[in-house]
Amino acid sequence: MKALEDKILNEGVVKSGDVLKVDGFLNHQIDVAFLNEIGKEFYRLFKNNGITKVLTIEASGIGVAVMTAQYFDVKVVFAKKSKTINISDDVYHTHVYSYTHQINNEVMVSKHYLNQDDYVLIIDDFLANGEAVKGLIDIVQQSGAKVAGIGIVIEKGYQKGGQLLRKLGYHVESLAIIQQMNDVTGEITFKND
Amino acid sequence: MKALEDKILNEGVVKSGDVLKVDGFLNHQIDVAFLNEIGKEFYRLFKNNGITKVLTIEASGIGVAVMTAQYFDVKVVFAKKSKTINISDDVYHTHVYSYTHQINNEVMVSKHYLNQDDYVLIIDDFLANGEAVKGLIDIVQQSGAKVAGIGIVIEKGYQKGGQLLRKLGYHVESLAIIQQMNDVTGEITFKND
Repeated sequence: MKALEDKILNEGVVKSGDVLKVDGFLNHQIDVAFLNEIGKEFYRLFKNNGITKVLTIEASGIGVAVMTAQYFDVKVVFAKKSKTINISDDVYHTHVYSYTHQINNEVMVSKHYLNQDDYVLIIDDFLANGEAVKGLIDIVQQSGAKVAGIGIVIEKGYQKGGQLLRKLGYHVESLAIIQQMNDVTGEITFKND
Repeated sequence: MKALEDKILNEGVVKSGDVLKVDGFLNHQIDVAFLNEIGKEFYRLFKNNGITKVLTIEASGIGVAVMTAQYFDVKVVFAKKSKTINISDDVYHTHVYSYTHQINNEVMVSKHYLNQDDYVLIIDDFLANGEAVKGLIDIVQQSGAKVAGIGIVIEKGYQKGGQLLRKLGYHVESLAIIQQMNDVTGEITFKND
């Protein structure tokens, strides 16, 4: 998505530790009008997949998920994170390792909000190692629903998550795929399809 | 807002410990079409207040904030919570005590995304003791911006937060104000203006 690549080049900042800061429009301040364009693009890419629900994980996936779900006219479910294990019988749960914070998060979705009739579009802001998405897939599978697609705003193409998910046969669409970024020069290059 | 009161009566569940579960439409599963109506109503209530930014706190405020900001054609900023203190020079920060989790959260907003020219609409899903909103007001004041309004989806009218904020002169609009709720009978009554 050319507009997204331009926005990353104009507003993104590469920081040490493999960090791309895009908190001016995506995950701290939210440029709602721009996220609307992102939602529209996900709709274009997945509109024939019979989506009945959008699933994401708190917190920074929620804005994108809501804007996307508007186009599909379906509800959003966001998985909740907790550092403590506090499981009741009526939730699906899994573990997600956060490389950023170096902790395991317990991630939960109420059994009320996913079921075997659902065709789920998983949405997240970033894809790197794929830990969060793998956790969400695990939850979808526990519910008996189908993963109908995976929509990512920014994929770090040089990390293993995207390759792994595509090898497993999932329909993954990343709106921008970073091929390389350099925290000294600030340079960012994209993988073009 | 009659439609919201009806939705709370139909889908809300009163639990012990003063908990109103509305996670079927507001804070776990998100009924995007309904939140759109909520956003429209906040626009009607605050459209003459010169709003330049919508401020909320992660995670469950984000959906409402995004849907509301669409009508004002402004950006959203969501304050980030952390249990640990990890402050840098370029953030406004404050403490918010969570009665639900009985912990102090450190809450932060980057200095890049609020400034003295902003007229801020604070949005949150619930108002009870007012701790979260007071924290957001503190952050707005640190930035030199003005609090132009406070929009709440559900206020627990029998708790002190709403009264306190109105006494301080803030323009608070709560779309549903609960007068009483009973976790034995499940009964919920609203305060009608």
